[in-house]
Amino acid sequence: MSKKVAIVGTGLIGRSWSIVFVRAGFEVWLWDPIDGAVSTAIKLIKEELPNLAEGNLLNSCSVEQVFARVHASNSLEDALDGADHMQENAPERVEVKQKLYQQIDQLVDPQTVLASSTSGIVASLFTENLNAKEQCLVAHPINPPHLVPLVELVPTPWTAENVIDRTTKLMHQVSQAPILLNQEIKGFVANRLQGALLAEAFRLVEDGVCSARDIDISISEGLGLRWSFMGPFETIDLNSPKGIRGYCENFGPLYYELAKEQADPRIWRESLIAKVEQERRQDLAADKLLNRQHWRNQRLALIVSTKKDGEAKLGK
Amino acid sequence: MSKKVAIVGTGLIGRSWSIVFVRAGFEVWLWDPIDGAVSTAIKLIKEELPNLAEGNLLNSCSVEQVFARVHASNSLEDALDGADHMQENAPERVEVKQKLYQQIDQLVDPQTVLASSTSGIVASLFTENLNAKEQCLVAHPINPPHLVPLVELVPTPWTAENVIDRTTKLMHQVSQAPILLNQEIKGFVANRLQGALLAEAFRLVEDGVCSARDIDISISEGLGLRWSFMGPFETIDLNSPKGIRGYCENFGPLYYELAKEQADPRIWRESLIAKVEQERRQDLAADKLLNRQHWRNQRLALIVSTKKDGEAKLGK
Repeated sequence: MSKKVAIVGTGLIGRSWSIVFVRAGFEVWLWDPIDGAVSTAIKLIKEELPNLAEGNLLNSCSVEQVFARVHASNSLEDALDGADHMQENAPERVEVKQKLYQQIDQLVDPQTVLASSTSGIVASLFTENLNAKEQCLVAHPINPPHLVPLVELVPTPWTAENVIDRTTKLMHQVSQAPILLNQEIKGFVANRLQGALLAEAFRLVEDGVCSARDIDISISEGLGLRWSFMGPFETIDLNSPKGIRGYCENFGPLYYELAKEQADPRIWRESLIAKVEQERRQDLAADKLLNRQHWRNQRLALIVSTKKDGEAKLGK
Repeated sequence: MSKKVAIVGTGLIGRSWSIVFVRAGFEVWLWDPIDGAVSTAIKLIKEELPNLAEGNLLNSCSVEQVFARVHASNSLEDALDGADHMQENAPERVEVKQKLYQQIDQLVDPQTVLASSTSGIVASLFTENLNAKEQCLVAHPINPPHLVPLVELVPTPWTAENVIDRTTKLMHQVSQAPILLNQEIKGFVANRLQGALLAEAFRLVEDGVCSARDIDISISEGLGLRWSFMGPFETIDLNSPKGIRGYCENFGPLYYELAKEQADPRIWRESLIAKVEQERRQDLAADKLLNRQHWRNQRLALIVSTKKDGEAKLGK
C-alpha cells in the first residue's frame, strides 16, 4: 500500500485530517482550488504542531518529522497521482461536490479510495455517474478529527467491498475509530443520536422544566462522564445485575412512556432559540466564542490523552 | 447549620452518599430497617475508602479522618435527631416510601430537609399527607454519586423555597452538581435525555443501520468526549462562528427532519433486546459484568480526577 494521501480542500477539516495522517507516518499532499489556500493551510498546520507535541498527540514523532510529511500539490492531478486514499473536504453543496468529483473522475487511478468528509450529503448524490463510482464512500469525521477519533463510513449502493475494507483498515491504522453504516441515512448515526438528545433538551427548556444551563450540567456532570469511555448500550448493560436484558425488563416500560411523550417533533422557534442564546451569552460573551473553541480543543486533548492512559492501565 | 446527615437505607446508593458527605466534613448517621444492614454498609464503606484515597477522591482527608465520621444509628429516631439533612434511599416502590415517610413524619424536627434519592417516583406521591410535607423533595443522584456529581432536585408543589435553597447550597458544599427542575416530570431530566438517545440507538439497530457495538463507538469515541466536560447546548454554541443561533439557523431544518423520522415510539421488543444482548455478551461474558462495573468505577474516577485538573489548569 502506498503511503500517500491526498487532502482535497484544506480548510479546518482538511488541516485536521492532514495531522491525523502525517502523525501516523503517511505522506500528505494538499490541494485546494482557492489560490493561496494550500500555503495558508500548511502555515497553520506548522503553527499547530508544537501544541500537539506538547499534549503528546503526535504519536511520539517530532514536530520536524511530522511536518516533513506535509506537501503542497500544484494541481488536483498531482495530489491524486499514486495516492492510496483521498480525503475530500469541499463545501457542503451537492453541486460543488458533483463538479469536483467529475474532475477527479478524469484523473484518478483505479486503486485510490475516494472518501468524502461530508456530514450531510450521501455520496450516491454526487458519484452515480462516475467511472470511479465503486471507489467512493463517505468517511465523516467529528470536528476536529485529530482530537476526536470517530469516523462514520457510509458506502453508496455501488461502493466496492474492498474499498470499505481498505478504508476501515486505514482508519484503524491512523488510530481513528471507524464505524460502518449499512445504508445511506439522513444525518448518519452520530448526528441522529445528537439530534434525538437535542430535541429533548430544547423541549425541556421550551416547556419550562429547567434552564438550558441545567441541561448542560445534567450531561457534563452526569451522563457525559460515562459516555466518554463507554457507549449507551454498555452503560445500561452495566446498570443491572442481569445486564442489558435485566435493564430493559426493568426500565423498558418507563422509556416507552417517555418515547411517547417525546414523539412530538418541534421546530426550534425563534423565541426558544433566543431564550437559550440569552443564557449562553450570559455565560460566554459572543466575542469570547473563538477563545472558548481553543479551550474546548485543549480540554479535548486532555480527555483524549487521559483516555489512552486509562485504557493502558485499566483496559479498554 | 448542623453537620449531621441521616442516611436512611444503606444499600449501594446510601453507601455512596455516605462517602459524599463524610469526605466533605459531615457526620453521617446510617439507618436501615433490615437487621445487620448498617454494619454491613459500614464494613463496605471502610473497605472502599483506601481505593478512594489512592484516587485522590477523599478531598485531601485521610481514610481515618473520614471513617471517624461514619456512625451507626440504633433507630430511625436516632438517625434523624438533630440532622440538617436526611437522604433516603429506600426501595423504589411507592407504598414502601409512603410507609417510611409516615414514620419519619412522627420523628423529624422541623429544620431537617427530607431528600429522596428516588429515580422514578415524584415526591408528591408519598408526602402529600405529611405534617413535614414542606420539608420534602427529590435529590436524585446518578450512580454512584461519589463519582458522578449530578444531582437532580425535584421539589413537590408544596416544598418550601428555603428547603430548595438549603439543599442546593448543601449539594454545592459537598461538591456535587445540583440542577433544579421547576416541575415534577416523569423520568426527570437526565433519564429523559438518556431515553431520547437510547430510543434512537435501539431504532438504528432494529432498522439494520449499524451494529450496537458501532452505536457505542459513535458515543465513546465521538460525542461523549465533548459531553464529558460541556453539555449539548455549549457544544453546539461552539460549533458555529455565530454561536448557537448560527448553529440553529444552519442545522435546525435538518434536525427537524430527523425529529419527524424519530417520532415513532417503539417498544424494545424481545427480538431486538436479544440482538443487542448477543453483541454485548460477545464483548463481555455475563460472569464478567461485576468485574466490568468495578472497571467502570475506576475509569470514572480517572475521568473525574482529570476533569478537576483540566478545570484547574484551563478553566471550567
